[in-house]
Amino acid sequence: MKIALVGIGKIALDQHVPALAASADWELVATVSRHGQVPGVEAFASIGAMLEARPDVEAVSLCLPPVPRFEAAAAALRAGRHVMLEKPPGATLAEVHALEALAGERGLTLFATWHSRMAHAVAAAKGWLAGRQVLSGRITWREDVRKWHPGQDWVFEPGGMGVFDPGINALSILTEILPVPVHLTGAELEVPANRQAPIAARLAFTGGISADFDWRQEGPQTWDIELQTDAGPMALRLGGNVLEIDGKRAEGIESIMGEYPALYARMAALVRAGASDVDLSPMVLVADAFTLGRRRTAEPFAF
Amino acid sequence: MKIALVGIGKIALDQHVPALAASADWELVATVSRHGQVPGVEAFASIGAMLEARPDVEAVSLCLPPVPRFEAAAAALRAGRHVMLEKPPGATLAEVHALEALAGERGLTLFATWHSRMAHAVAAAKGWLAGRQVLSGRITWREDVRKWHPGQDWVFEPGGMGVFDPGINALSILTEILPVPVHLTGAELEVPANRQAPIAARLAFTGGISADFDWRQEGPQTWDIELQTDAGPMALRLGGNVLEIDGKRAEGIESIMGEYPALYARMAALVRAGASDVDLSPMVLVADAFTLGRRRTAEPFAF
Repeated sequence: MKIALVGIGKIALDQHVPALAASADWELVATVSRHGQVPGVEAFASIGAMLEARPDVEAVSLCLPPVPRFEAAAAALRAGRHVMLEKPPGATLAEVHALEALAGERGLTLFATWHSRMAHAVAAAKGWLAGRQVLSGRITWREDVRKWHPGQDWVFEPGGMGVFDPGINALSILTEILPVPVHLTGAELEVPANRQAPIAARLAFTGGISADFDWRQEGPQTWDIELQTDAGPMALRLGGNVLEIDGKRAEGIESIMGEYPALYARMAALVRAGASDVDLSPMVLVADAFTLGRRRTAEPFAF
Repeated sequence: MKIALVGIGKIALDQHVPALAASADWELVATVSRHGQVPGVEAFASIGAMLEARPDVEAVSLCLPPVPRFEAAAAALRAGRHVMLEKPPGATLAEVHALEALAGERGLTLFATWHSRMAHAVAAAKGWLAGRQVLSGRITWREDVRKWHPGQDWVFEPGGMGVFDPGINALSILTEILPVPVHLTGAELEVPANRQAPIAARLAFTGGISADFDWRQEGPQTWDIELQTDAGPMALRLGGNVLEIDGKRAEGIESIMGEYPALYARMAALVRAGASDVDLSPMVLVADAFTLGRRRTAEPFAF
């Protein structure tokens, strides 16, 4: 099936393009971007021009920042194309509900992806937790924004989500693996004096689960979910790629390169089945954190 | 049917108690409150004590502030009672999803009320708009927080929602009457330097609709929704109680005292039908405004 990629930035080049190149399901035949290109692939400057010139493109994968994503997704759906959305699936919950309605009316596939749910050990963790009781938990998601979003000021703008841009990956795993859903009971957001979105957040959930998101960690990066259960401790490390049971490695690889191939395989399966997959629960928790969070002013931040 | 009222503050005494007194469906047999009481009605200090002492209470109506509401609602549902929630139905979206799941599992009624949807002219406005096209619109919701929430510091705390506490009434009408749903495209939130929640907000929605919420209006109060349509202008004034078509009054009363009786009649109908009614679309728009809103610091506010 022929696919177009919209938004040729870091994540497109690092993950989407290699995943599509290795896919037996998809052929990347067009890109849309103001600046980026993929060698050997027809490039367009606007999604409107691409949709008009390439009626053979069956699906469109969007890796734009969240704020402009809605217009592009709506244009693709109105033109009868299936749509796959990078995380978070939009800048607001209501716009994703609108896309869902649009896809439903037209019988098209809409896939709101959560790449971290495809991390190597997530399914094993979910299986292990099924039927067990979670007594408490701690999420530690600390990384260096300068490394992962160099110069990307939009991440600190309204709608850019700040530290929830990586933090939502942790929440996408948490909402996938827990046998009983949680909700937020309190949050503290640290917002740099010269920015709009938080650079750090501490969250408290029901079930004794807490989260520590920080975008100021230099040196080794941390993406851990540690849970205490009625059958002892378990941990997911390396963003869901390594599972430890009782302190011993049960399952794991040291690479995150399997996540996007798994997303594109799922997209192909959804299109073939005529189905959609739009689970907004990670984004609901982030919207709840913005609503319920107490804000504190942090040091100004410059890239 | 016997009902208990939890949270005996201003809204309970102004609206819930008179509505229940006039209802043929309900008998108010218990209250739960730290301080408030209703003469002639058995009073409890905790919901746990009430649920234990009064197994004959079939339904519980909660008019607590949003933050403590979840625990009370969950306790009532776990004890097998139907639950009616004041607006907004919780401090977070995820907690209301959890209540919905709990009510569903136990076959109980959960009613997330939006009293402004019961305002006299809302149904007529919805009927008039059906099949018409809305070209643009302006919501003006300006009231005096000192008059409506005297000394209630919680409204400016995280989870208190600030000016969205009244503003969500406008959004509950908007989401009810519009033939096509809207979503937020931008927001500005004015937050007093000494508070956490906004005292004013300006919102921009798709479809050319904007909203101006302000809690600093002394003198006459304004609760207007004005829409331009392909069939000319229409306006809802007085919080949905008066409908104007083309500048002329089409429908209206000068009182808001019909809203709560209509809510309790609907609650009785839901219980009899074994159904729930939980529409979170107004709250989604507020969570989106907190997520997407640009914050500006306003003058400190004291009651």
